[in-house]
Amino acid sequence: VTGRTKSTWKLTVAYVGTEFSGWARQPGLRTVQATLEEAISRIMGGREVTITVAGRTDTGVHALGQVASFDVEGAVPDRLATRLNAVLPKDISVIACDQAPAGFDARRWATSRRYIYRVLTASQRSPFEEGRALWWPHAVDRAALEACAEALAGEHDFTAFTPTQTEHVRFDRRVAEAEWSDERSDVLAFRIEADAFMRNMIRVLVGTMLEVGGGKRTVDDFRALLAGAPRERAGETAPAHGLYFAGVEFGEGPAFVPAEA
Amino acid sequence: VTGRTKSTWKLTVAYVGTEFSGWARQPGLRTVQATLEEAISRIMGGREVTITVAGRTDTGVHALGQVASFDVEGAVPDRLATRLNAVLPKDISVIACDQAPAGFDARRWATSRRYIYRVLTASQRSPFEEGRALWWPHAVDRAALEACAEALAGEHDFTAFTPTQTEHVRFDRRVAEAEWSDERSDVLAFRIEADAFMRNMIRVLVGTMLEVGGGKRTVDDFRALLAGAPRERAGETAPAHGLYFAGVEFGEGPAFVPAEA
Repeated sequence: VTGRTKSTWKLTVAYVGTEFSGWARQPGLRTVQATLEEAISRIMGGREVTITVAGRTDTGVHALGQVASFDVEGAVPDRLATRLNAVLPKDISVIACDQAPAGFDARRWATSRRYIYRVLTASQRSPFEEGRALWWPHAVDRAALEACAEALAGEHDFTAFTPTQTEHVRFDRRVAEAEWSDERSDVLAFRIEADAFMRNMIRVLVGTMLEVGGGKRTVDDFRALLAGAPRERAGETAPAHGLYFAGVEFGEGPAFVPAEA
Repeated sequence: VTGRTKSTWKLTVAYVGTEFSGWARQPGLRTVQATLEEAISRIMGGREVTITVAGRTDTGVHALGQVASFDVEGAVPDRLATRLNAVLPKDISVIACDQAPAGFDARRWATSRRYIYRVLTASQRSPFEEGRALWWPHAVDRAALEACAEALAGEHDFTAFTPTQTEHVRFDRRVAEAEWSDERSDVLAFRIEADAFMRNMIRVLVGTMLEVGGGKRTVDDFRALLAGAPRERAGETAPAHGLYFAGVEFGEGPAFVPAEA
């Protein structure tokens, strides 16, 4: 792309969240947003950009296919992904960087987000899963987990599953898909897709489902939480390091999403 | 186990090789052997042990199921694996620690060793595979790789595949199985099982096969190397960080293996 016109870009990014203080830029902290914006600026001859993201992630949360967007004035070098990866640190990588339709905004155009939560069920910890899966060396009733996942499909009031109620104005979210599967013989993966998620929502869902899987509460109890029960009724918040932002679906233009999606 | 008698133990261990200077104890270096021996000594009230390993690994090489053995005099606490993992660093974990028949020696009783070499073929690097797979963003002829793997089965003279010819007295090794498979859509895995391996043997095999897969040499050329060709004829040594010691088979007693296995 050459000339002085503005162009819009879609960036698909993977990162290991361990050493990042989450997505959002914060003074003095190493964040994904700041790291990416600095790399983009560097390969664009110092032009400053501001990126918008489909799903902000908290400290320690990973991404397999995060999507961000930015606008830039003037000429843009070719092979952007390769150039960015040459200057980015090892724990983050641009998988693709393609020109997008004018007005594309990764947050506003996203129609659904997918996450994966990984649970290592081996009796001893694994050095390869350190910081990359919750280690849960306890008996788990798979059928109970699956019943919980089934109960999640559809629209529910997830008030019980977020601690930050003042940040939100709506607590209903539409879950398109939720399932537990075996990634490996000793790694369970919980996959969920919804229009949007509230802060900590998946981590509280997983923490609560593991309580059902361990016999501490029933599937009926879990089901009852999906109708706007208060936060105190749900279970523990599972740690950030098992959570992966997996991918995004986009519409042809801005979608209605809750402001805090 | 109580009393003053000697007992023999079999230790199954996983480690991320990145921060270790290989298996073998070396003064002033952080090695897997020294790390394990210190942990064992610590939970055994200071008794010193010397461990023997089925497959020594070089700097940067990982292990999924390494096996080691040791003898100890006197009482041994229960739940050894759990106790060891409580004192071991995060990049190494004991998967199992069981009492073994008297005389068991992980090196001498091993009848075959299995390794995996992982190759990331994605066009951009992955932060999750950093240090854990060779990043090879080049065209690869899968059929050619598979033909090479097929050629490996059986007994061959692997002189061309080790740089340390002075360390060895025999250069023939028996390959029980060798195959390339898709671990994921963008990760190829080369699996090989043999009675024993020479230093760097798998890394030179992989480096040479990738040259065949890239059209730089033919499958016939690769086949010809398996009959005792000199080292200069084979290809590059693939980096250590793609290699995993995967597992061991044991006989009922000492097996004949080359001294340097």
